[in-house]
Amino acid sequence: MTSQIDKLIYLLAKIPGVGPRSARRAALHLLNYREQLMVPLAEELKKSALIIQNCQICNNIDDQSPCLICSDTKRNQRTICIVETISDLWAIERAGIFSGGYHVLGGTLSALHGRSPETLNLNILVSRIKTDQVEEIIIATNATMDGQTTAFYITEFLSAETSVRITRLAYGIPVGGELDYLDDSTLEAALISRKPF
Amino acid sequence: MTSQIDKLIYLLAKIPGVGPRSARRAALHLLNYREQLMVPLAEELKKSALIIQNCQICNNIDDQSPCLICSDTKRNQRTICIVETISDLWAIERAGIFSGGYHVLGGTLSALHGRSPETLNLNILVSRIKTDQVEEIIIATNATMDGQTTAFYITEFLSAETSVRITRLAYGIPVGGELDYLDDSTLEAALISRKPF
Repeated sequence: MTSQIDKLIYLLAKIPGVGPRSARRAALHLLNYREQLMVPLAEELKKSALIIQNCQICNNIDDQSPCLICSDTKRNQRTICIVETISDLWAIERAGIFSGGYHVLGGTLSALHGRSPETLNLNILVSRIKTDQVEEIIIATNATMDGQTTAFYITEFLSAETSVRITRLAYGIPVGGELDYLDDSTLEAALISRKPF
Repeated sequence: MTSQIDKLIYLLAKIPGVGPRSARRAALHLLNYREQLMVPLAEELKKSALIIQNCQICNNIDDQSPCLICSDTKRNQRTICIVETISDLWAIERAGIFSGGYHVLGGTLSALHGRSPETLNLNILVSRIKTDQVEEIIIATNATMDGQTTAFYITEFLSAETSVRITRLAYGIPVGGELDYLDDSTLEAALISRKPF
């Protein structure tokens, strides 16, 4: 017979970043704050599982579809930023540096993880480009091998289907970064893309 | 208006060991595994908040009171191990090295945290020692200043109220430990408590 505490710890340990040890600590903390934390958390988890959904336009998650970003008429929906994940979208939103729309790929192309081009939902993006007269697509995939392969594929695909302007984020030295600690590829990219002072 | 995702992340970030960044990651993971993880976790949290309680005898937590350890007739209830927290009790149980009963203090004496001697529930322990003919009390508080102060207080208190045998865990070199990395106090304790080879 498994005790209730063991069941709780077992599930808590499945949360990413929470190992068995933190799960035990978390369980004790939650039990100490039942009314303030444990019960509210249970309710928000259940509510979230019910109402949070993917936006049918951009694949972001929100209480509503279209999501708040896609329904915001103050945002410039003619510029669309393509990101790999919702975390990446959140990172850009936190920085407060972009006021266009998004297209969330949900991951990169990857034969290893069985992610074929269809999973990127590019057909939705193409019809959006045509319907909303999108002027610019900014590809903001990660600067990893998979991210770059995916960016290349998207560029090819969109160029064949539309005549939209496609850009990508600049490579260079991170602001505040020290040259001595940078890898060779970043240094090379920064040198190639040097700007007049 | 706070979105449902923000509410969820806010509560997840209150779990010890989960910062804002891990909370965002956890939220996305949970949303990806709604039926397998998110809904079950919500249910176990709610159920745990309802049914997990403190054992009226030893202050352990369990689905029932007296807890499984206190109700286990195969355990030697005439030896009681005093631990600071339930985590400590779990650590000893995981090691499978002890088959007596426990008394969970719920913390150490601490003027700073407003923990006075009454919070240690020693009166319950005294009546237990008398009723159950307890033969030995093993004090297993932490080897910290607070733990030692508490151990000293408990020893004085129990000696005045009962004639039970009181022992404490041995100090020494941790098994597998290297002398070069040990602090002076541990080395000194190990030398003083040396045993014939």
